[in-house]
Amino acid sequence: MSQIKDDKIIVENQKTIEELRSSEYGEIKNSKLELSLIEALYLLNEDKLSLKKSKKELLNFATEKEKNFELKFLVYKDLRERGLFLKDGGKTSGFYLYGRGDKPSEDSFSDLVFVITERETLEISNILNLTQTAKQLRKNPTIALVDGEGDITYYRLKEFTPSGKVNNEFEEKIEAKISDDRIITWKGSEHFYLNYFFGKPFLEESYQLNFPEAYYLSKNEAIDLDPSVIRERGRQLDPEFDLKARVYNDLREKGLVPKTGFKFGTHFRVYTRYKGPEKLSHAEYLVQSLTPDTKLSPATISGAVRLAQNVRKKMLFAIANNEINYLKIRRVKI
Amino acid sequence: MSQIKDDKIIVENQKTIEELRSSEYGEIKNSKLELSLIEALYLLNEDKLSLKKSKKELLNFATEKEKNFELKFLVYKDLRERGLFLKDGGKTSGFYLYGRGDKPSEDSFSDLVFVITERETLEISNILNLTQTAKQLRKNPTIALVDGEGDITYYRLKEFTPSGKVNNEFEEKIEAKISDDRIITWKGSEHFYLNYFFGKPFLEESYQLNFPEAYYLSKNEAIDLDPSVIRERGRQLDPEFDLKARVYNDLREKGLVPKTGFKFGTHFRVYTRYKGPEKLSHAEYLVQSLTPDTKLSPATISGAVRLAQNVRKKMLFAIANNEINYLKIRRVKI
Repeated sequence: MSQIKDDKIIVENQKTIEELRSSEYGEIKNSKLELSLIEALYLLNEDKLSLKKSKKELLNFATEKEKNFELKFLVYKDLRERGLFLKDGGKTSGFYLYGRGDKPSEDSFSDLVFVITERETLEISNILNLTQTAKQLRKNPTIALVDGEGDITYYRLKEFTPSGKVNNEFEEKIEAKISDDRIITWKGSEHFYLNYFFGKPFLEESYQLNFPEAYYLSKNEAIDLDPSVIRERGRQLDPEFDLKARVYNDLREKGLVPKTGFKFGTHFRVYTRYKGPEKLSHAEYLVQSLTPDTKLSPATISGAVRLAQNVRKKMLFAIANNEINYLKIRRVKI
Repeated sequence: MSQIKDDKIIVENQKTIEELRSSEYGEIKNSKLELSLIEALYLLNEDKLSLKKSKKELLNFATEKEKNFELKFLVYKDLRERGLFLKDGGKTSGFYLYGRGDKPSEDSFSDLVFVITERETLEISNILNLTQTAKQLRKNPTIALVDGEGDITYYRLKEFTPSGKVNNEFEEKIEAKISDDRIITWKGSEHFYLNYFFGKPFLEESYQLNFPEAYYLSKNEAIDLDPSVIRERGRQLDPEFDLKARVYNDLREKGLVPKTGFKFGTHFRVYTRYKGPEKLSHAEYLVQSLTPDTKLSPATISGAVRLAQNVRKKMLFAIANNEINYLKIRRVKI
């Protein structure tokens, strides 16, 4: 019979210790085995441990001892049941997760797993920090998102700089006019559309631009409107104009073609190449622009990533700080 | 050569009048044909009208005369190009749209088309009102959503009461305990799960409930927790607890089985029948709970509906007023 001591379960029976160690449970201290409360509840539930407390008693004991105990327990249970090994992640993360076939006693871990519940809101800069911390440690940053029913979805994070092959060149200033909530261009503007995918056809020989497009073109002196005029009207129409325009600009500078992602519920869909409207390729990315202090609900992330993957695109969050960081979030099967 | 008079274009040439009337343009007044500015610009762009003003001049004239002129023009052009007839909708809507093959001169219209731009936020109660107005007139309520590039997505609205076939019966009070952000139930609770899909397995012989589930069960005296205790903790964890619990309750009362819709970025996924976890059917609806004054961005609606249809579910917005109204929004090809 094992004993509880503080927040550890102490196993003294040598046969049990050998069995449990062969499956990588616990740590040996003074020739005894110390199990964490999570490990102990997992083993108790599997009938692999004998303890004076019942499962119910151990659960109640553990939830009072440790904040978010069941949350971590659910993730631990799920990953063990998938045949993977994991260890408590201490202060940096929820768990250290080992690659398939790797063991804590022999190998180093591959993933930092951050455990998050459906009801927490997440500041995007924190998620970016996790990603950067993991990168420094050369580990994969993985989020385990636990929903209200205890189902777990895993997301892998990656900081990522997208790039494309479209380089815009402008020769002459085209006539343009703000017309309520779009910008109409006339003769000569087919060049923008046919070569670089600025705007969409409006009337015969005329095109309509949205505000980030027009702002970019005006800053490149390709249309005869002043950037400040476009910015002023853009801000009136859309409180997020500055943010979107900045990300739009950055994507264009990277050789990419951003168009509205409205149909996908995001700011932009992004093409890496463009050979004219007749040969339109698949848009590779969906991009949502955020300020570093934007708070996202897990459901928003879950919905956006799900939709992106359903339409075979990659979901990027563009975080506009001093520079713009792109965070790729994708759902993974573990 | 036709003349502009106020916000109408007057055509006097009898041959032109006959041609245009055969395609249902304009209205005859005093044996002359009056065209709206939208019709005139459309015809000018198609080279079917001669006017002293150029397209550019007429566009500038019209945008100064009429608010959101280009927006309505884009929708008009799109629908005419799809071979449909439409008339200005006056004060109730953007346009009256006629069914395929139907003509304004012979038939009555089928749809009220509301023209909305990507940048407007929509109060959900207003959308519900449009739907109810259209129903009184026995017309289809249709939204034409114009994105920043002038692309148009059509949505059809319907007020709709979902119903299912799952009737819950409870016999004895089951032991339950709030454990941080979920409710754990023990012996006897497999009944809830196996017959009615309350909760999900947690440990052997124990289940986890989320707060709306537990609240419903406690109000039905099926678990030994007081509803007020669950509500208090539920509100601490989730500012939307009351709203979600109310919609959850209503769906259960309608014989439906709501489970978290987290993976789809919505509050609930909803089953109309349930024959046990082994024979789980396809969840037919995704439901988002809203208060009547909730302001939605068109991108949110667009994303939610797109995702729902990608996974072959129907998107319902549950609007919790004195009663709960369910609004179905689906994207349609027109």
